Amino acid sequence: MIKTDILIIGAGPTGLFAVFEAGLLKLKCHLIDALPQAGGQCSEIYPKKPIYDIPGFPEVLAGDLVDNLMEQIKPFQPGFTLGERADSIEKLEDGSFIVTTNKGTKHHAPIVAIAGGLGSFEPRKPQLENLAKFEDNGIAYMIRDPEVYRNKKVLIAGGGDSALDWSIFLADVASEVTLVHRRNEFRGALDSVEKVQELKNLGKINLITPAEVVALKGDDNLHSVTVQKTDSKAHIEVVVDNFIPLFGLSPKLGPIADWGLEIEKNAIKVDNTLDYQTNVPGIYAIGDVNTYPGKLKLILCGFHEATLMCQSAYQRIYPDKKYVMKYTTVGGVTGFDGTKKEAPKAVVKAIE
Amino acid sequence: MIKTDILIIGAGPTGLFAVFEAGLLKLKCHLIDALPQAGGQCSEIYPKKPIYDIPGFPEVLAGDLVDNLMEQIKPFQPGFTLGERADSIEKLEDGSFIVTTNKGTKHHAPIVAIAGGLGSFEPRKPQLENLAKFEDNGIAYMIRDPEVYRNKKVLIAGGGDSALDWSIFLADVASEVTLVHRRNEFRGALDSVEKVQELKNLGKINLITPAEVVALKGDDNLHSVTVQKTDSKAHIEVVVDNFIPLFGLSPKLGPIADWGLEIEKNAIKVDNTLDYQTNVPGIYAIGDVNTYPGKLKLILCGFHEATLMCQSAYQRIYPDKKYVMKYTTVGGVTGFDGTKKEAPKAVVKAIE
Ligand SMILES: Cc1cc2nc3c(=O)[nH]c(=O)nc-3n(C[C@H](O)[C@H](O)[C@H](O)COP(=O)(O)OP(=O)(O)OC[C@H]3O[C@@H](n4cnc5c(N)ncnc54)[C@H](O)[C@@H]3O)c2cc1C
Ligand SMILES: Cc1cc2nc3c(=O)[nH]c(=O)nc-3n(C[C@H](O)[C@H](O)[C@H](O)COP(=O)(O)OP(=O)(O)OC[C@H]3O[C@@H](n4cnc5c(N)ncnc54)[C@H](O)[C@@H]3O)c2cc1C
Repeated sequence: MIKTDILIIGAGPTGLFAVFEAGLLKLKCHLIDALPQAGGQCSEIYPKKPIYDIPGFPEVLAGDLVDNLMEQIKPFQPGFTLGERADSIEKLEDGSFIVTTNKGTKHHAPIVAIAGGLGSFEPRKPQLENLAKFEDNGIAYMIRDPEVYRNKKVLIAGGGDSALDWSIFLADVASEVTLVHRRNEFRGALDSVEKVQELKNLGKINLITPAEVVALKGDDNLHSVTVQKTDSKAHIEVVVDNFIPLFGLSPKLGPIADWGLEIEKNAIKVDNTLDYQTNVPGIYAIGDVNTYPGKLKLILCGFHEATLMCQSAYQRIYPDKKYVMKYTTVGGVTGFDGTKKEAPKAVVKAIE
Repeated sequence: MIKTDILIIGAGPTGLFAVFEAGLLKLKCHLIDALPQAGGQCSEIYPKKPIYDIPGFPEVLAGDLVDNLMEQIKPFQPGFTLGERADSIEKLEDGSFIVTTNKGTKHHAPIVAIAGGLGSFEPRKPQLENLAKFEDNGIAYMIRDPEVYRNKKVLIAGGGDSALDWSIFLADVASEVTLVHRRNEFRGALDSVEKVQELKNLGKINLITPAEVVALKGDDNLHSVTVQKTDSKAHIEVVVDNFIPLFGLSPKLGPIADWGLEIEKNAIKVDNTLDYQTNVPGIYAIGDVNTYPGKLKLILCGFHEATLMCQSAYQRIYPDKKYVMKYTTVGGVTGFDGTKKEAPKAVVKAIE
């Protein structure tokens, strides 16, 4: 059982920044995310695109913003349960919660902060017989650890940035990379399209287009994939260790919708007059996942909501303590890892 | 008469960022500030100190944050009335406002956003006869344009960062710089103290400590200043063109307190359930200057408040238009100066 002060569901920018604000209050955080990496929409949908409305950044790549947030929260040593979806919640008698993921991992905390964005990112799956049978036995929809594919025969399907970028990356890792797409045209960053063309010319990526995967073969593990050319209808049998369909991830509010929280327009209603708490005391909702009058689904709003949430969480955990806010410039930042950041002190010194 | 869409009182981080959010909505802004420069507390009190809780910046100097904000809002060409205090407000029949400064400058706008922080920064003045008489005739409490002091004889009084830093700066500009402080010890950044020591050794700064200015002489203009040594009680007559007492600025809510707005704990009460509007429709209060349940006087909160305020201002100005928010990443940023920032577009390209 993982224990923490604030259990954060969703490691997007909002959830990440909550770790920092909680840390200033000496509260520890643990984050659960269905994705294999932190950063939410920023990392999953547009890591290489610039954002222009993060205050103080005339321009910042979404991926860099996430890297900066990870760096900022590092002193507060957040825990992560990645690649797992928070599925169920149970309220104990003492008012604390146990949250269990789809893989059975249990988390216990007095406070739950849902920072689930548009929902848990779920892969779009191809319609294929035996698909479920080979999931985790050769088929994966997200790449957690590329090392798993070292010296393996890999077939990737898809025509967007993920399919392009992973084909490029795995060309150096896997023994064989085949890329299948139902059109000849790919849609992505110019760089990536050109790089795949180059690797194809070098024979480092086998390209089969326009084509689709139509069947899966194997016993316990996947052994081969049948690809059908869209034009000639010819079948090609490709022997593989792994098949990775990268058809995009779409967010689904999913199980959280059944946690007894008030839902409106596919988002969780919160009390914006005070602390972004839901109708269940002790459960907060911050960032894109919440709704209130005038709500804007912007990253900078999630930062503010996370900050006010932490103050309220502190009061719930320590009802008798009065927290006196100190500016970080004045008080510095003392990490749980023993690090201390501090403004250089003014000196008092005679001039003679 | 200066005309604009949103008249912002206070050019601290909150007021500055409001310009950006307004600009995205194609609303123009003009800012009034009592200080000679933008940046509010960040520029005036701690420009060289690090802030650790601006989301996405593990560390940023307050002065750099202000520079970044100025860069970010540049495409939206804000107007500035600096070195003037907004003193009075008048509501016209059409619901718009005229705001007049202490120097008589008039501003007309349908929306007023008060981003006045802890108040208008007012100098702490020494107790001296004839002080008022020489104000603007040799005496100044803030340095607006250092060029005014080129080849002049200047006496600075004070023992903190401002006195140190301006003495250093003016040593290269003025023909003579005298620094007077009531103690031998100065309080400031180590760098600055050491630099003043060096300039004193080089004869570029005359240092008189421990001492105080006790009298002012002149006719229409200031001609000399009498300095009394604290230890020997000896008097020293220093011939000067300018006397700049730098004893710190302290913020005072000041005239805004009499604008008919609901005030609580020296701050303006706003409706945090929606748009940070005050009890007077069309007047908003954002950043440190406002108060509501759970309010935190943090820069990141001001950013959020400014953003929601702009949405509401837009609805007031264009009651019949429905604004559809577009992410900056998707829509780009189109400046009033004709500039356009935009994410590189994805290509759709065949790989052969
Ligand atoms: C193309 C694009 C451009 C954008 N441009 C801008 C912009 O310019 N400016 C701006 O401010 N915003 C922009 N946004 C919106 C911005 O990305 C979101 O506001 C932001 O990501 C919200 O952050 P969040 O942390 O609240 O949620 P998210 O980033 O959505 O993260 C939520 C995370 O929670 C996880 N999760 C949800 N439910 C569960 C569960 N049950 N179990 C486990 N994990 C779960 C998800 O997998 C996800 O990783 C843009 C969005 C897109 C798609
Ligand atoms: C030493 C110190 C350290 C700090 N550290 C942090 C930190 O680490 N993190 C953090 O988030 N915050 C910190 N703060 C607080 C932060 O600086 C403020 O929250 C922030 O400056 C508020 O911004 P603002 O734009 O609302 O107001 P301000 O920065 O106060 O700006 C308001 C401006 O309005 C002007 N004004 C007011 N009334 C009038 C008028 N009638 N006419 C003309 N002009 C007027 C003032 O002159 C001023 O320039 C710190 C503050 C101090 C002093």
